[in-house]
Amino acid sequence: MVKRMRLLGFMFHSPMNHTILSWAHPESTQGTEFARPEFWQHIARTLERGRFDGLFLADTFSAYDVYRDSYEPTVRYGVVCPQHDPVVLIPVMALATRHLGFGTTMSTNAYHPYVLARTMATLDHLTGGRVGWNVVTGISRSEYRNLSMEDWLPHDERYDRADEYLDLCNQLWGSWEPDAVIADAERGIYADPAKVHRVNFRGRYFTSAGPLVTLPSPQGRPVIFQAGSSGRGRDFAVRHAEVVFSIQLHARAMRVYGDDLRSRAEQLGRDPNEIKITYGVQAFVGESEAQARELQQEMVERIPLDAALARLSSSLGFDFSTVPIDEPLEQIRTEASQGLVTALTTLYGGTMTVREAAVRWGASVGMPQVVGTPEQVADQLQALHEEGGGDGFNLTPTYTPGSFDMFVDTVVPILQARGQVRREYTARTFREQLLEE
Amino acid sequence: MVKRMRLLGFMFHSPMNHTILSWAHPESTQGTEFARPEFWQHIARTLERGRFDGLFLADTFSAYDVYRDSYEPTVRYGVVCPQHDPVVLIPVMALATRHLGFGTTMSTNAYHPYVLARTMATLDHLTGGRVGWNVVTGISRSEYRNLSMEDWLPHDERYDRADEYLDLCNQLWGSWEPDAVIADAERGIYADPAKVHRVNFRGRYFTSAGPLVTLPSPQGRPVIFQAGSSGRGRDFAVRHAEVVFSIQLHARAMRVYGDDLRSRAEQLGRDPNEIKITYGVQAFVGESEAQARELQQEMVERIPLDAALARLSSSLGFDFSTVPIDEPLEQIRTEASQGLVTALTTLYGGTMTVREAAVRWGASVGMPQVVGTPEQVADQLQALHEEGGGDGFNLTPTYTPGSFDMFVDTVVPILQARGQVRREYTARTFREQLLEE
Repeated sequence: MVKRMRLLGFMFHSPMNHTILSWAHPESTQGTEFARPEFWQHIARTLERGRFDGLFLADTFSAYDVYRDSYEPTVRYGVVCPQHDPVVLIPVMALATRHLGFGTTMSTNAYHPYVLARTMATLDHLTGGRVGWNVVTGISRSEYRNLSMEDWLPHDERYDRADEYLDLCNQLWGSWEPDAVIADAERGIYADPAKVHRVNFRGRYFTSAGPLVTLPSPQGRPVIFQAGSSGRGRDFAVRHAEVVFSIQLHARAMRVYGDDLRSRAEQLGRDPNEIKITYGVQAFVGESEAQARELQQEMVERIPLDAALARLSSSLGFDFSTVPIDEPLEQIRTEASQGLVTALTTLYGGTMTVREAAVRWGASVGMPQVVGTPEQVADQLQALHEEGGGDGFNLTPTYTPGSFDMFVDTVVPILQARGQVRREYTARTFREQLLEE
Repeated sequence: MVKRMRLLGFMFHSPMNHTILSWAHPESTQGTEFARPEFWQHIARTLERGRFDGLFLADTFSAYDVYRDSYEPTVRYGVVCPQHDPVVLIPVMALATRHLGFGTTMSTNAYHPYVLARTMATLDHLTGGRVGWNVVTGISRSEYRNLSMEDWLPHDERYDRADEYLDLCNQLWGSWEPDAVIADAERGIYADPAKVHRVNFRGRYFTSAGPLVTLPSPQGRPVIFQAGSSGRGRDFAVRHAEVVFSIQLHARAMRVYGDDLRSRAEQLGRDPNEIKITYGVQAFVGESEAQARELQQEMVERIPLDAALARLSSSLGFDFSTVPIDEPLEQIRTEASQGLVTALTTLYGGTMTVREAAVRWGASVGMPQVVGTPEQVADQLQALHEEGGGDGFNLTPTYTPGSFDMFVDTVVPILQARGQVRREYTARTFREQLLEE
C-alpha cells in the first residue's frame, strides 16, 4: 500500500520565501505583489487545484541583524524583509478556496494566550474549519529588542512558559461546551450559561478568568503545528503537536529525527501515529533535466554573499563576519561558534568552506532540493518520502507564483497517478485532511 | 453651504450591536450568521452602495459580569457575547468593496506596539489604504481578569502609557522612508538601507529597536480614531486622534462636548479643524411614522430586564443589583454609585427609575434614536448635525443586515439630494475620505 504524501506550501508574507533574491527571478512577481491580496488568492487557488493539504506561513518580528550587528544586507537584498503579518492573509486566501487549510505562525511571546485563542477561534469560524497554528516559542535577539523583552527567560524555561500557554489556550477553547448555543429567537435565548465555564486559570506566567468570548469553532481548536529541534523543544512538540514540521537535509537525517520524535512520544505515553511529520523541501522542475538544473544554478548564482552570511548568522545566532570565510568548516574553532559550526559540519560535511555553506543556506535553509523533469522530481520526492519515513512535505517555491503552477500542473498528476496524493478533497476540516491516512 | 455629514456603520463582531436581543428580530440574521464572511461582505457592500465613509468596529475581551458578579444574563441573552476578533474581518470586507474604509478597535493593553503597528500596516496594504485604528486605552475589570493584568495602572497613568504607545507606533510607521524601496530585479537591490532607520525607543513602558518590518503603507499609518470621555481621555484624544467618536444623547450635549474638545485642542496648539467628531446614532426607518415607532417599540419591549441591568452595570462599573431598581435615579445614593448615578441623571433626568434607565441603555447605550419615515429620519439627522455641530455619525443598526439596506435605499438618497452626503467616491484613501470637507 502506498503511504500518502501530505503536501503543504511553505511561504513568508514577504518578497521572498527561502531562496535569497528569488524575488529578482524574471518570472517572480512576489517582490512587488506580496502585499496585495490578489497575489495570495492566486497562490491559494493554485495549491487547491493541486489538491494540497494546506499552506504553511512562517513568521518573525524582526530583520536579520546578527551579521556585523547590522540589518544592511538584509534590507538591501530583501532577505525575508519586509515581513508582513501573515495572520490577516488567512481570510484573504480562504475566500478564494473551499478546502485548502492554512497554518500560520503566531509567537507565544508576541500575543497573550487569551488574544491568540480568540483570533484563532475567529479564523476557524471564518474559514469553516481550515485553520492551524504553528506554535513558536523561541525568539531571536533581534525580536527581543523589538518587543520590550530584553530580560528574557532562559531556553528551557521558555518551554515551561509555552507549556502553560498551551494549557491555558486549550482550557479557553473548551470553555463553551459544543452545544451551548441555542439561538432561539422566539424565546429570546441565545445560549445556556450552564454550558459556558470560567477557566479561573492561575499559572506561573499567566492568569485568565475566562470564558473565552468566541463560540465553539468548527474544529474546536486550530490544528497544532510545531517545529521543535532541541531536546526540550522536541518534548514540547510531542506533548502538544498534531503535525511536526522539520528541516532535515536528507532521508537518513529525516529517519533519525522521526525515530527520535516517535520514541519521545512513546515515553510521554502518546501514540506516535497521532503525530504527523512533514519535512521542508524545494523543487526545481524543468521540461528537461538540464533546464531544471539551469534554474537551480541560476537561483544560487544570484545570491549575494553578504546576504547569505547575514541570513546564516541570524539563523545560527553567530556573527560569521568574525571568522575567515574561505576556511573549511572543520577549521573554524572559536568558543562561541563551536556548537553551531559542528551543526553545520554535520549538515554539509567538514570540508565545505563557510562561504559555500552560507550560499547553500541562502538557497534553501538546509532543505533538500529535488531537481529534474516532473517524473524525476516525483521519483525523488517519493524516495525521500519512503526512505525518510515522514508523512509529507512543506514545499517551498523558487520563483513565485509560477513554480507552484508548474509543480501543480506537471508533478502532481504523476503523484496522483501513483496514488501518492489525493485526486479530490473529502475531509470536512483541515485536521481531518491532514490526519487521514 | 451645506456641511458634509460623515456616515460610518457601527457594529460588533457579535450576534448583536447596540440593542439587546436585536438578533432575535425576525428579519435579523446576525445571531446565526455573524461568524461567517458572507454576512460581513453583504454589510460592506450595502454601506458602499450608500457611499458611507466606513464601518467602525467596537471590541472588548470579556463578557459583561459586574451585575451579580456573573455573566449569566450576558451569555443567556447574547449581550455582545460572543464577541469575535474584529481585526480579521477587515480583509474579508475589503475584498467585497473598493472604497469603504474600516476602523477597528485594538486595545493598547492587548497587543505590543510593534505587533499592532505591523498588523495595521499590513492591513493598510491589503486594503489599499482603507484602514483606521480605534485606540482603546481603558480596560474593564473583566478584561483585566482575562489578560493577566490584575495589578493594573491607575486611570491617568494608563493614558501616560498610551501616549508612549502612540509615540512608539508613530516612530515605527516612520522607520522606512516612503522611497526606501527600489525593487530593482536586474541589479538585485530591494531597498536602500540608508532610508530604513532604527527607532531605538527606550520608554518607561516599552522598548523597541526597530525598524518595523513592513513597507511604508498607502496611508503611512492608519487613520487614528479615539473616543476619550474623561478629561485626561479627551486630552489624549486631541493629542493623537484624527476622528473622535463620542456618544451624546442630544444635540445640546454634542455641542458642549465638541466645544470642550476644540478648546482642549487649541490649548495643546492643535488646529481644532483637523479633528473630526462623529456621534453615535440609531435610526428606525419605516414606510410610515407609525411603522417606524412600532419597530422602535418592538425592539425595546424585547429587552430582558436582567440583560439590561447586566449591560448597564458593566458599562458603569457598578453592580445595580445592590440598589432598588424602581426608585427614581435621584433617590439612589450609595457611596460607590454616586458619580455614576449623577451621570445617568444628567443623561436621562432624575425622575427616571433605574429600571427605565437600564432599558433605555439596553436599547441604544445612550445614543439618540431618530425615528420615522425616510424624510423624517433625514430631517432629524440633519437637525442633530446642525444643532450638535459635529462632523457626522456612527450609525448603529437595529435588525441586521436589513436595517442598513433600508437606510441606504431610502434615507441616503434624500441626504444626497440635499447635498449632505456624497453621491460618488473620489478620495484615494480612508483618511482623505474622512477629512475632505
